Amino acid sequence: MNYLKKVVLVSFCAFFSLSLMAQTHPSIMLTKANVAAVKKGVNTYPLLRQSYQTVKNAADKALAEPIVVPVPKDGGGGYTHEQHKKNYTNLLNCGVAYQISGEKKYADYVKNVMLNYASQYEKWPLHPKRKSEEDGGRIFWQSLNDFVWQIYTIQAYDLVYDGIPATDRKTIEEKLFVPILKFFTEDRYDVFNKIHNHGTWNLAAVGITGYVLNKREYVEIAIKGSKKDGKTGYLAQIDQLFSPDGYYMEGPYYQRYALLPFVLFAKAINNYEPSRKIFEYRDKLLSKAIHTSLQTSYTDKTFFPLNDAIKDKTYESVELVYGVDLAYADIKAEVDLLDIAKQQNRVIVSDAGLKVAADLAAGKSVPFKYQSLWIRDGGKGDEGGLGILRSGANTDQQCVVLKASSQGMGHGHFDRLNLLFYDNTTEIFPDYGAARFLNIDTKNGGGYLPENNTWAKQTVAHNALVVDQTSHFNAKLEPADKASPTLLYFSNQPNLKAVSAKEAKAYTDVAMLRTSALVKVDGLEKPLLIDVMQAQSAKNHQYDLPFWYKGQLVNTSFPVTAKANQLTALGDKNGYQHIWLNASNKLENKAGMVGLLNKNRFYTNHFVSDNPLEVKLLSIGANDPEMNLVDGKAFMLSSSGQNQTFVSITETHGGTDPINETVSSALPSVSELKLVKSDAQQTIISFKLNNKTYTYQINYTEKENYISLR
Amino acid sequence: MNYLKKVVLVSFCAFFSLSLMAQTHPSIMLTKANVAAVKKGVNTYPLLRQSYQTVKNAADKALAEPIVVPVPKDGGGGYTHEQHKKNYTNLLNCGVAYQISGEKKYADYVKNVMLNYASQYEKWPLHPKRKSEEDGGRIFWQSLNDFVWQIYTIQAYDLVYDGIPATDRKTIEEKLFVPILKFFTEDRYDVFNKIHNHGTWNLAAVGITGYVLNKREYVEIAIKGSKKDGKTGYLAQIDQLFSPDGYYMEGPYYQRYALLPFVLFAKAINNYEPSRKIFEYRDKLLSKAIHTSLQTSYTDKTFFPLNDAIKDKTYESVELVYGVDLAYADIKAEVDLLDIAKQQNRVIVSDAGLKVAADLAAGKSVPFKYQSLWIRDGGKGDEGGLGILRSGANTDQQCVVLKASSQGMGHGHFDRLNLLFYDNTTEIFPDYGAARFLNIDTKNGGGYLPENNTWAKQTVAHNALVVDQTSHFNAKLEPADKASPTLLYFSNQPNLKAVSAKEAKAYTDVAMLRTSALVKVDGLEKPLLIDVMQAQSAKNHQYDLPFWYKGQLVNTSFPVTAKANQLTALGDKNGYQHIWLNASNKLENKAGMVGLLNKNRFYTNHFVSDNPLEVKLLSIGANDPEMNLVDGKAFMLSSSGQNQTFVSITETHGGTDPINETVSSALPSVSELKLVKSDAQQTIISFKLNNKTYTYQINYTEKENYISLR
Repeated sequence: MNYLKKVVLVSFCAFFSLSLMAQTHPSIMLTKANVAAVKKGVNTYPLLRQSYQTVKNAADKALAEPIVVPVPKDGGGGYTHEQHKKNYTNLLNCGVAYQISGEKKYADYVKNVMLNYASQYEKWPLHPKRKSEEDGGRIFWQSLNDFVWQIYTIQAYDLVYDGIPATDRKTIEEKLFVPILKFFTEDRYDVFNKIHNHGTWNLAAVGITGYVLNKREYVEIAIKGSKKDGKTGYLAQIDQLFSPDGYYMEGPYYQRYALLPFVLFAKAINNYEPSRKIFEYRDKLLSKAIHTSLQTSYTDKTFFPLNDAIKDKTYESVELVYGVDLAYADIKAEVDLLDIAKQQNRVIVSDAGLKVAADLAAGKSVPFKYQSLWIRDGGKGDEGGLGILRSGANTDQQCVVLKASSQGMGHGHFDRLNLLFYDNTTEIFPDYGAARFLNIDTKNGGGYLPENNTWAKQTVAHNALVVDQTSHFNAKLEPADKASPTLLYFSNQPNLKAVSAKEAKAYTDVAMLRTSALVKVDGLEKPLLIDVMQAQSAKNHQYDLPFWYKGQLVNTSFPVTAKANQLTALGDKNGYQHIWLNASNKLENKAGMVGLLNKNRFYTNHFVSDNPLEVKLLSIGANDPEMNLVDGKAFMLSSSGQNQTFVSITETHGGTDPINETVSSALPSVSELKLVKSDAQQTIISFKLNNKTYTYQINYTEKENYISLR
Repeated sequence: MNYLKKVVLVSFCAFFSLSLMAQTHPSIMLTKANVAAVKKGVNTYPLLRQSYQTVKNAADKALAEPIVVPVPKDGGGGYTHEQHKKNYTNLLNCGVAYQISGEKKYADYVKNVMLNYASQYEKWPLHPKRKSEEDGGRIFWQSLNDFVWQIYTIQAYDLVYDGIPATDRKTIEEKLFVPILKFFTEDRYDVFNKIHNHGTWNLAAVGITGYVLNKREYVEIAIKGSKKDGKTGYLAQIDQLFSPDGYYMEGPYYQRYALLPFVLFAKAINNYEPSRKIFEYRDKLLSKAIHTSLQTSYTDKTFFPLNDAIKDKTYESVELVYGVDLAYADIKAEVDLLDIAKQQNRVIVSDAGLKVAADLAAGKSVPFKYQSLWIRDGGKGDEGGLGILRSGANTDQQCVVLKASSQGMGHGHFDRLNLLFYDNTTEIFPDYGAARFLNIDTKNGGGYLPENNTWAKQTVAHNALVVDQTSHFNAKLEPADKASPTLLYFSNQPNLKAVSAKEAKAYTDVAMLRTSALVKVDGLEKPLLIDVMQAQSAKNHQYDLPFWYKGQLVNTSFPVTAKANQLTALGDKNGYQHIWLNASNKLENKAGMVGLLNKNRFYTNHFVSDNPLEVKLLSIGANDPEMNLVDGKAFMLSSSGQNQTFVSITETHGGTDPINETVSSALPSVSELKLVKSDAQQTIISFKLNNKTYTYQINYTEKENYISLR
């Protein structure tokens, strides 16, 4: 337990007795004291007005439809699943509409829906579509969705509390919320005490419900765990699930998801017991988590799709709307957050949303400050991390991500030192993300597809080095969870942004070092992405380094002769079975280049190897009986030997203007890429550009002079 | 020669002698009398200001760079090609900047560039990269680009005429423009007199140059052809290249391209000789052509990519900026054209642009009126046409295109009764367009790829019926050019928009009838696309009807078992050699369905056949050695017998909300699609929807009661 945590726990004990203040409602996102101001703000500030209008329209739509509380039956995406989700959204919308409009019909609706649930809930057994006895829900197939349901529903209850009769409240509390609390904390005891996002949702639901019902014993176990020893519970989750930089070990997609219960519960704690100074906890960890979540997105608003991730998820997601509003209003009013709020195009109709909308209306917004960062992973910050390099304005930014973070538990992919590259507000070298059609029942019930394990998690599905056609850690979670990459170097200079990391455990006898840099060179509009992947081994191995790309192949230094009549899979396991081999070329001089056209811009990847080199052109889709995989293409550098270095320079150049039918700089400027030397001390490469020869040198053992370009 | 044409030619003769008015400059898009007003407008109307700013920035950029007039050397997309294109753009921009700013430096630049060309032009032989002696240019690899160059350049000359010394004008005219006129009209005599878009560019360049240089003999041959007999030349082109509805036989992509010389030359004629009433010619044909060009686009701004077409071409293209500005200002001020101008986000800095920008600033714009139309093809309007069915607001419009037009010469595809379907501002059942990377030198010099013939033009590359795996007309142009489909029925009622057409010549002994309809049914938000493809034959044939689709397959009524380890091509010729067969299923009950997810919306295609049915899942890419083809997927209905009817109902339903992680109506509502009867008189189908059974009936022989739904 760190020092700060001790201090907070001491404060916690000291102030607890003082916190039995009179219950006022509402008291979470919207507080009684601020209702008048928010009402006024709705008429004054465009974004708040529009956000409230959306809420009110949805509430009115709910009122116009019959109340339907079906007996739980369907899995994710199915009818009863979606209806129960719809119900909690309706409840919250009507709760807000009641407070702002003062119209009793909204409170009545909430009351009636809740009474309907109260009349049935105790009769519902575990959900028939549950996957196990341990995590089945009662309203939904997995208890996680029940927790989410309760977080929304209890807020709605808080909002209409004063608008419904005490006898009905009694029924709702006794027949619905108390049984739910019991189900969550007793039947789902293990989940409640698990350091995992399912646990966060559970305890946040329990804690907030505890505050609203004034059952503080539930608040206490939510904060300190069932045994009240602090080994589990909310504070333990803040300590263990996040790194000191606020990075959530499962990756950006789940970080976003996990964020909502963290910040909502924090907001409730802060309202009911401000003396706990929860936003200060662990050096303002929650604020860092919100900022880090935003920093792990690209300028197209999407999160880096690392590990199991749904690719079209953006920071417009409601969790980040809560996060940004609260970060700005309750923690620190950093005006670049207003830019995100503007992109989100909504605020929570709440105290925080009022402040955000007012400051936006006052013109305080500045462009969001995307940074080049090394974000540490691990509770202590010593389990690798994420290297993020950025260059250029938000309107046309280059971004490189080196994934050198820890495994991130069951949703982690086996992609140590995976490289992502973005430019021009689009993906250039993407990550596949998860193999899943979220909530689409016809696709494996909307859950993860079998190909998530056989393809998406495997190393070869990423821009990562594969040794002997075997995935990192043999795609086994246990050893992977125990090891993490090491940061060797990080630099954020105007002309040289670089990150270098090492992974020594993914293979028994191969150490991998990857050094990726955005390098500004005179005479080029955009930086060069210089990427050096070095493998060190005492034994002979086969090395494959794929670059999955978006766009169309328009240029190669070698003659492409694609398979004509017959395609076969590249291998039979470890993800290779899902790849079609379209073409392969052995390159005599161990060097070559591939030119791509993506969103009307050219990208040329110049590459060189120290061992004999073969380049393979690949596409996704083999051994996919139900056609679950989405399209993808790659060029893969293949070689074999003991030590192996793959160097590549990705040059961004020119483009096409389809409207005016013009083309500029279709051919690259870099030439004669050579690998001069590569060993444990140094990698030295040279290349020509505008009649000048450049030497790019990495000194692995010199922290002070790690990279130079001459 | 029709009546109207006679009248115009009579007028032409009567007024010709009066037209020898004093030369004033400028006199084309921008006229001397209006310069002051346009200058004022630049400071008043946002769109004109912004459009001028773009022109001026480009002009300033040109001035900041050295003048480069390289000896012609490279093909399309190559350095000298792009430099000469850049030069003509720079010239025109500087010409406009000179008139609006009055700054002499812009005129000097134009003068210097033109003197440079004048010093070299006569030395340049035919272009070294020319494909033939007949159509090679001198500045560019094909003379077409030379014509375009001259159209821009002569406008620039007109704009700076008063700003450069007479001696320099003499040099420029004698050493550059006169030799160009000679080259265009003598060396390129055949092109000049060809009824074809290359001819249009040539004669427009010659005609406008004739006006500007006051060499009216060139105007006369431009209008009436080299022999001045009216059999060729501008008026003959208007008569023969467009249908009475203003449809250009080569299709929307080339219609757009051809439009610029037509409207620019018309504008010049109208300015110099208004008495010719050129905009009235052939019942306001040019106005119709501009409107038809817009009507052959979808709400995503792209043109229907029929025949050889670059797919990302939109009405933002400069030709349509000219077209829309002139249509609005010089022909008829229809306020929905302002909506297009707003989307184009620019106007020509000109008399016409001034009017458009002023009326836009005055708030006169209304949404563009997309229509459901039968657009006739052929000079007399009797060579088939294009059926366009639309439903819904421009923000979310369904659109069906039935291609029943004539072949359209060498750029035509063999895709009689091809069906395109759009919804939600995106393609659902697309057309591949052309196999070409325009101007990208590394891809066959930026020209059409070999796969344009072997794939893109073949029937199977389209949503069209293929008989015996052979393309329409055996993919031979001559017989295809002689035959065109026949319209059987067109209807544009609120609840039933339908088009039915017949093609009897594409195969020797098979007649094809296709009837496509957008049908509004109670209880469904979006109309159903009901498509009936009937083949009539006395002999046994194999029938294939592919539906090329965008999006991801998420549902099927049959178990998909895709090829696992080995893909083979579907055939060995007629485009089949480029298709991978991913899966195939024989459907016992001759019916099935396929569900797609595209841009967060679901589309389910229910289908049924009268003969035993097989459904094949396909993707593009086989026998493509240089990987020239872009990705594409299809489901193909296959059957065999004598007469054959394929019925399909495409249902648009529900969707996913990735931000909120919700799904609605993932499953279709239509069920039990049955083919009750199909013969030469009738096709009768039935289907169930919301517990009601509907009967949809086509009566091929009853024009008054062609389609009914009960």
